[in-house]
Amino acid sequence: MLPSKTEIPKGVRVYLPPQAALKRALETKILSVFYRWGFQELVTPTFEYYDVLALGTGEEFRDRTFKLTDQATGRVLVLRPDMTPQIARVAATVLKEYPKPLRFCYNSNVFRSVEPQVGRHQEFYQAGVELIGLDLPEADVEMIAIAVESLMDVGLADFKIAVSQVEFVRGLLQELRLPPEREKQVQLALHKKDSSALDVLMETFRLPADGREMLLALPNLFGGEAVFEQAGRLVNNRRSEDALANLRTVYDMLKVYGLDSFILLDLSEIRGFDYYTGIVFEAFTTHLGSEICGGGRYDHLIGRFGEECPSTGFAIDIEKLQVALERQGAVQPRKVVDFLIVDFKPDKREALRIAQELRRRGYRVARDIIRRDLAGSLSYARRMGIARGIILGTNGLSDDEALLKDIDEGWERMVPIAQLLEVIEALGTAPFSPL
Amino acid sequence: MLPSKTEIPKGVRVYLPPQAALKRALETKILSVFYRWGFQELVTPTFEYYDVLALGTGEEFRDRTFKLTDQATGRVLVLRPDMTPQIARVAATVLKEYPKPLRFCYNSNVFRSVEPQVGRHQEFYQAGVELIGLDLPEADVEMIAIAVESLMDVGLADFKIAVSQVEFVRGLLQELRLPPEREKQVQLALHKKDSSALDVLMETFRLPADGREMLLALPNLFGGEAVFEQAGRLVNNRRSEDALANLRTVYDMLKVYGLDSFILLDLSEIRGFDYYTGIVFEAFTTHLGSEICGGGRYDHLIGRFGEECPSTGFAIDIEKLQVALERQGAVQPRKVVDFLIVDFKPDKREALRIAQELRRRGYRVARDIIRRDLAGSLSYARRMGIARGIILGTNGLSDDEALLKDIDEGWERMVPIAQLLEVIEALGTAPFSPL
Repeated sequence: MLPSKTEIPKGVRVYLPPQAALKRALETKILSVFYRWGFQELVTPTFEYYDVLALGTGEEFRDRTFKLTDQATGRVLVLRPDMTPQIARVAATVLKEYPKPLRFCYNSNVFRSVEPQVGRHQEFYQAGVELIGLDLPEADVEMIAIAVESLMDVGLADFKIAVSQVEFVRGLLQELRLPPEREKQVQLALHKKDSSALDVLMETFRLPADGREMLLALPNLFGGEAVFEQAGRLVNNRRSEDALANLRTVYDMLKVYGLDSFILLDLSEIRGFDYYTGIVFEAFTTHLGSEICGGGRYDHLIGRFGEECPSTGFAIDIEKLQVALERQGAVQPRKVVDFLIVDFKPDKREALRIAQELRRRGYRVARDIIRRDLAGSLSYARRMGIARGIILGTNGLSDDEALLKDIDEGWERMVPIAQLLEVIEALGTAPFSPL
Repeated sequence: MLPSKTEIPKGVRVYLPPQAALKRALETKILSVFYRWGFQELVTPTFEYYDVLALGTGEEFRDRTFKLTDQATGRVLVLRPDMTPQIARVAATVLKEYPKPLRFCYNSNVFRSVEPQVGRHQEFYQAGVELIGLDLPEADVEMIAIAVESLMDVGLADFKIAVSQVEFVRGLLQELRLPPEREKQVQLALHKKDSSALDVLMETFRLPADGREMLLALPNLFGGEAVFEQAGRLVNNRRSEDALANLRTVYDMLKVYGLDSFILLDLSEIRGFDYYTGIVFEAFTTHLGSEICGGGRYDHLIGRFGEECPSTGFAIDIEKLQVALERQGAVQPRKVVDFLIVDFKPDKREALRIAQELRRRGYRVARDIIRRDLAGSLSYARRMGIARGIILGTNGLSDDEALLKDIDEGWERMVPIAQLLEVIEALGTAPFSPL
């Protein structure tokens, strides 16, 4: 059977112009926030040697990567499944002599091989930051502050940041003294918030009553400041107590930043990656069932590539953000081109000059090169989402007049060519900005 | 042997902040030119099914692709080696009902597996356009005009656009009536401008004297308008004559556009891709040995995925452009962050407010969260390329004063915090723009 020429792999997509424009606008806006906080972009290769990058990726992750072969060396390559290990490697090697902190940002795609399901992607677009070389709570607060500002700046409404501290749960699990394999199973059930799986495990592992009580209480450690008191009553080990104290410090600083109204504490959360070591967070909205952004502290990841270096970071999933904004009704359809110049004059120089002057002012101007009648050109403009037409050399126009026509609103004006730019600027058509 | 943790595959690279910032600035500027000419961005998947995409890629190309396996279906995937076939497929399928012309642009990476050599890449970053649905010479002229404007806008000097028409050489070769395999060998020698290989082939194939004369004359068909006359004397077949007439029309229009000073005619050029069918062009500078951008007409590529549709396009190689600009001395080192706020006050709210207000005005502001003395903070700022420091709560400052310090120029000023923003704006520090 011949392959269908329209077929593309599951979990990857083509962005047609309206979606591509929105994607570009969101990415540009979010990168601007990152720049304003003093972060600088890094660009890393799409693929690297598998054995090198695997040092930084979690075990469960390594099975979900795309592997290929380097024809020159025969070595196995991997499409990056995550930006953080790549940036950690750069910080630990090429940039190890640089003074800390380092503030890096990126806007890249990552790849994860999954059994294709509805809404599961194999190519993801992300914008994220890494703050490298700081173990102070203020660094964690900076991450959350940037996440909030980024999501606000693109117009996302009704979102919350769920903040957790992975060491809290790890301390509780340590109290249970389960063998590593069993501890991992419990962790997984907690991560998936799968309470029936948790029930089965508690039964199978014959946990003592106080251990069960503790695990069952975890999902309730969710909400506002009151969570600290509930959690304090539950813990009886140093590790969890330290985690709780650290989370309290961060929460108090978030109040100073004026961000506490965005925060939900969620002490049951342990995030997916094995490299997290402290404060972790995720952003949710009512418009989407899964997190739009996530990140946290990874104090030992850089150490896997060189010297230890405490760090934290987060990434926004651009596609999820896009879907949330669309569902929220925050995405306005925009005209894609400001002017279509339709020129019936034999001498093209006038049309070229007008196009050039408009472009110099930042307008988006297409010339209708195809040969057709005026009605055909205007119908094309309407279909393509072009805002206005400028017509030369037809419709009873004299040689020094143009017809300025609004495609949707239908009005038209005869304008002396010499005054065309003035008239256009007086109309207040804002030059296009990708922001 | 353990893998070296610093090792990355040959032919791919990490862009550290100065290079990444330049890359981003070039891409943003070039995309703005494309938008102003009415082109809209498309985003395509990084990989597709090999058998589908191979319909649009040249034979010689297919051996130079990276292949991988789709775990869900077991089918062979390929990292896109070229954007044009992907966009052609979209135009031929998803968008086939749309009125023409379609104007698309992209800013993407493509992948080509090569024997690693100095300067040969396996991951390339491109910005390009496709103008779909027009067979008129003006469409070819628009491509060249956009290429010139893009290269001018980023400050490239001393560049020329070498313009050719692939049908000219094809007509000459047809006159020689060589078997396809031999014709291909001659084409390859011409494409590589390898005159000794050409000599050998002419000898081996026992070409008649007039055929040899013709082939030997080809490399001289290079330069200004006089080329038309020289070429006219050489041809004796309809195909080449039509090609020459088409090139003449395009050249005359380029004069109307005022672009003839950028043009070099090069009738020996046939470009690398098998899909080109008419006008092709490449941009060169004296600062680089290979072309910075290239493209041309591909009237039958879309037909491989659906209905025939005449089209033309080009792409700029961002990395080559970057190298050319650096060699030309056109790249100014820029400060990466405008302000470092160094705050010794116990109450952080003042520093937060100042940072917030500066960021709102578009300044890039980092806070020095780490605990160290003022000298340490300033030395960090100098090392990291930060322009100015704002110091609070130390150095004999009162509670409502800040120290504004220029890191490189060395001057400093005590400023009442209430007047800080005014003073900063009066300094004329331009807010950062990625353009």
